[in-house]
Amino acid sequence: MRFLIVAAVWLLVAAPAGAQDLRQQVGGYVAGHRSAIVQELMELLAIPNVAADKPNIRRNADHLQRLLTRHGLQAEILDTTGNPLVFARTPPRAALPTLLFYCHYDGQPVDVKQWQQSDPWEPVTRGEGSETRIYARSASDDKAPIVALLAALDALHAAGTDPTVNVKLILDGEEEASSPSLVPAIARYKDRLAADLMVILDGPGHPSGRPTIAYGARGIVTLDLTVFGPKSGVHSGNYGNWIPNPAMRLAALLASMKDDSGRVTVPGYYDAVPPFSPEERAILDAVPEEDARMLSAFGVAAPEAAFPRLQDALQYPTLNVRGLASSFVGANARTIIPDRATAALDLRLVKETSADDLIARLRAHVEAQGYHLVDRDPDAATRAQYGKLARLAANGQSLSAFRTPIGDPHARAVVASLTRTFGQPPVQLRTLGGTVPIAPFIDAIGFPAILMPIVNFDNNQHEENENLRLSTFFDGIVAIAAVLRQ
Amino acid sequence: MRFLIVAAVWLLVAAPAGAQDLRQQVGGYVAGHRSAIVQELMELLAIPNVAADKPNIRRNADHLQRLLTRHGLQAEILDTTGNPLVFARTPPRAALPTLLFYCHYDGQPVDVKQWQQSDPWEPVTRGEGSETRIYARSASDDKAPIVALLAALDALHAAGTDPTVNVKLILDGEEEASSPSLVPAIARYKDRLAADLMVILDGPGHPSGRPTIAYGARGIVTLDLTVFGPKSGVHSGNYGNWIPNPAMRLAALLASMKDDSGRVTVPGYYDAVPPFSPEERAILDAVPEEDARMLSAFGVAAPEAAFPRLQDALQYPTLNVRGLASSFVGANARTIIPDRATAALDLRLVKETSADDLIARLRAHVEAQGYHLVDRDPDAATRAQYGKLARLAANGQSLSAFRTPIGDPHARAVVASLTRTFGQPPVQLRTLGGTVPIAPFIDAIGFPAILMPIVNFDNNQHEENENLRLSTFFDGIVAIAAVLRQ
Repeated sequence: MRFLIVAAVWLLVAAPAGAQDLRQQVGGYVAGHRSAIVQELMELLAIPNVAADKPNIRRNADHLQRLLTRHGLQAEILDTTGNPLVFARTPPRAALPTLLFYCHYDGQPVDVKQWQQSDPWEPVTRGEGSETRIYARSASDDKAPIVALLAALDALHAAGTDPTVNVKLILDGEEEASSPSLVPAIARYKDRLAADLMVILDGPGHPSGRPTIAYGARGIVTLDLTVFGPKSGVHSGNYGNWIPNPAMRLAALLASMKDDSGRVTVPGYYDAVPPFSPEERAILDAVPEEDARMLSAFGVAAPEAAFPRLQDALQYPTLNVRGLASSFVGANARTIIPDRATAALDLRLVKETSADDLIARLRAHVEAQGYHLVDRDPDAATRAQYGKLARLAANGQSLSAFRTPIGDPHARAVVASLTRTFGQPPVQLRTLGGTVPIAPFIDAIGFPAILMPIVNFDNNQHEENENLRLSTFFDGIVAIAAVLRQ
Repeated sequence: MRFLIVAAVWLLVAAPAGAQDLRQQVGGYVAGHRSAIVQELMELLAIPNVAADKPNIRRNADHLQRLLTRHGLQAEILDTTGNPLVFARTPPRAALPTLLFYCHYDGQPVDVKQWQQSDPWEPVTRGEGSETRIYARSASDDKAPIVALLAALDALHAAGTDPTVNVKLILDGEEEASSPSLVPAIARYKDRLAADLMVILDGPGHPSGRPTIAYGARGIVTLDLTVFGPKSGVHSGNYGNWIPNPAMRLAALLASMKDDSGRVTVPGYYDAVPPFSPEERAILDAVPEEDARMLSAFGVAAPEAAFPRLQDALQYPTLNVRGLASSFVGANARTIIPDRATAALDLRLVKETSADDLIARLRAHVEAQGYHLVDRDPDAATRAQYGKLARLAANGQSLSAFRTPIGDPHARAVVASLTRTFGQPPVQLRTLGGTVPIAPFIDAIGFPAILMPIVNFDNNQHEENENLRLSTFFDGIVAIAAVLRQ
């Protein structure tokens, strides 16, 4: 309360702010306009927004166009092959760099029964003090960042300052449906989208609550590795010790791919990953350690030892066994030598490792273990010819990784401004471990991108009771303002 | 037809037969009494015989008592804690060895829809010539051997000869329900059951059609081996390369248990198995090779290389992965590091290897790989303390192996008589690879046992359209007569 009064008084007398004043200035504006900002978000959250719900998607787009216009932006709806994009910009000023902000206005489908409220699109407020939260679908993912950007622009305007960048904003209407129309839209709307840096306002922030940026995210490709045994299960007594067992062979094959530390032993798997520069090393080392808390939460005594720290581990491709299946386990188990055994794999990619390259290395490794690789279930002639038969098949499309160089000048400007504003550098993640669906868009658009997540890490994204912690949200407005006022 | 006439003429003039005449003599009797023998079997097959169907089980027992009495045996019904046993014997003659024949009169439940006939207990005859078969539940498993034994006794009687052994016969009424009352019956009926050798008339004969005996069968114990990961699945992107993966660790653990040839590398796993004597070696080597035919049928190019031949492989305990499970494979697969991975194992036991000993060796091996073994899902404190957690738990009871020494004098007499009668030794299997439910009874009864399967190998035992190939059945009567007339 004391802070609110001080800030309000200060605003009345302040001259246009220098960077060191920005935090107080914007913080003060937010404190004085909480109700209006929250009201604006609540209205936006009240419009259902599942990508397949075309009438409501249109209502969202129209509402957003009006909202953006009301906040002084030049806003328009861009038709695509799918859901419309909403595009807006500040009046362009020459000689300023241009940032293209990306958010999405669609949200995940809901299972209403799981929610504590009767309608996930009737937002409700629960909790007190700094733990006050809004509960609604898309509260955090990803409508709050839209409203936060507008509040940041308003705060600068109220302080009599202009952004030091040209601002463009693109709002995606089908991100939760994998954004099929986004890459095709680049060709059609090339001039509008042109910028020096894309800033993706999406995802959960760092648990420490500090401003966070990420320079990249890993990609992914999923595969099934199947080892074939007898063409149907055979009696484990009559033929045990004689007919080869595909489950045991799959185990040996998987075990040949990693050592006990968790390091992939498939030749060349990490070869494309260059050594870290001193600056990259420093950035990795500066990420706050959360190991003990995470390990305790997961019930794991110790992490793998292939890489010295989690942040190091995330810089390399993975080879993860996400599932195993062979015949039955439990009540339905039968005493047989199974006909096949399958491991479902996912490989996380980094910028320097393509799905094709890693799959080629895996195939070569499997062949080096004596396997003949087939594309489909082997026929009798193939079975008669090869002692060891396996199939390694990618399923679904791969999503590429992206990573903007830490030395990118526009990214440096973002970091510098956040550092000045908050008195310490933001948490800088060289690569997120997970995969973001927007990676193909980043890949295609031709200028660099960073992620700047501003919402609470525990927002229950994609699940029931999705929520937005308001104090984190308000801090996020300040962070966005810092990026606008470099 | 010519043979029938010759045999019939020969019977009219023959003196009591020597061993070299037995085959023709009994064969002639069978040829002359086919209709009556088959009729007797058809009547027996017409009585439904699922172990849980108490009224019909009783009808079977009563019918069998009358049938055995009509054939000159002293027959009685022995009450047990479960279904009645039917017991019969020839009038005892001192100074002769005693054989206890074992058959069972109950059969597997049926799924009528799967059968080609409307009622599996209304036997039908299909096929021609040597491929004439009776189709009915228990045609082969295990009512035919009962009728075959009676026909063999009748044939000897018709030839004016007596068996050179005292014959006892025990008919089990709940073998397909795991014979729970059989071992307890030993104490109650000890004197009746006493014998020098048990001859189990059950199971399919050798595909070659030659008379076959087996000196033993492997036992079995089933286990689940679970490796624990994080207490619930974690995101494979956010934590891949850092949180240990239990599916990969299970793979490595399984791979540490066998080499590429299929040989178990768990220390001491085969230690209890003694080297073969020259006679055992000769018997193993004399079993007809069926490798190429079996491998082709199974669609496997080459067997494992741990043992030189199938018959060798069956003399050793197995470590078979009968199932694998971890999270999901296929459409439901999720990009996670799973919380656990389980291998369902079955270990086939041989006479010298107990389940307890093999499990103790497996446990020691798992611990030697750095695992802490738990008895249930680990709690938080256990998770915090141990980097590698696994559970190895036997499920269900183990069934022991049995094996009668090849040098057993009563078994030798059986082999000698079959050799004389058929002009070559029978197929002698030192150990069946599979497990027979009667093993605990053999273990408990205190005298040796051999298996003598007499029905066609392709009888569809336990399945729909169970059948008995009559020409094989008639040959079996001769083989049983040979055993009676040593």
